[in-house]
Amino acid sequence: MPKANVYVTLKPSLLDAQGKVVQGALEKLGFTNVSAVRIGKYIQIELEGNSNLEQQVDEMCRKLLANPVIEDYRFEIER
Amino acid sequence: MPKANVYVTLKPSLLDAQGKVVQGALEKLGFTNVSAVRIGKYIQIELEGNSNLEQQVDEMCRKLLANPVIEDYRFEIER
Repeated sequence: MPKANVYVTLKPSLLDAQGKVVQGALEKLGFTNVSAVRIGKYIQIELEGNSNLEQQVDEMCRKLLANPVIEDYRFEIER
Repeated sequence: MPKANVYVTLKPSLLDAQGKVVQGALEKLGFTNVSAVRIGKYIQIELEGNSNLEQQVDEMCRKLLANPVIEDYRFEIER
């Protein structure tokens, strides 16, 4: 069964508040060599059928999975 | 600068409620060939230095980034 792995990330120009908090927490734990943390989503989708999957997943991202105003996305399909 | 990409996913035996909601929303949008959706985290970490990075990132995952009771994690390091 084909599977799509989708990676949704905040656009690089935007402040990632959640990432900043995690970076601070890592520093407090003693990881002082962390210069940046950014947190995104990793979405695994199991699909049926084999036709037009790239086009379909791209449409899913644009319509629901990512907010194109503030987020970027990329995906790969495992067949 | 080395970068770690960390993927945190809910253990397969656990119900992913957020994924179920997204699956339902995709079906309503007309994507009827989606048989499962699972949602995890994609964490990008910029690091300084080059020694023991694998060991360090594994420790970050165990101590902070993932909850080992309910989540699995994997990571790769780009040098």
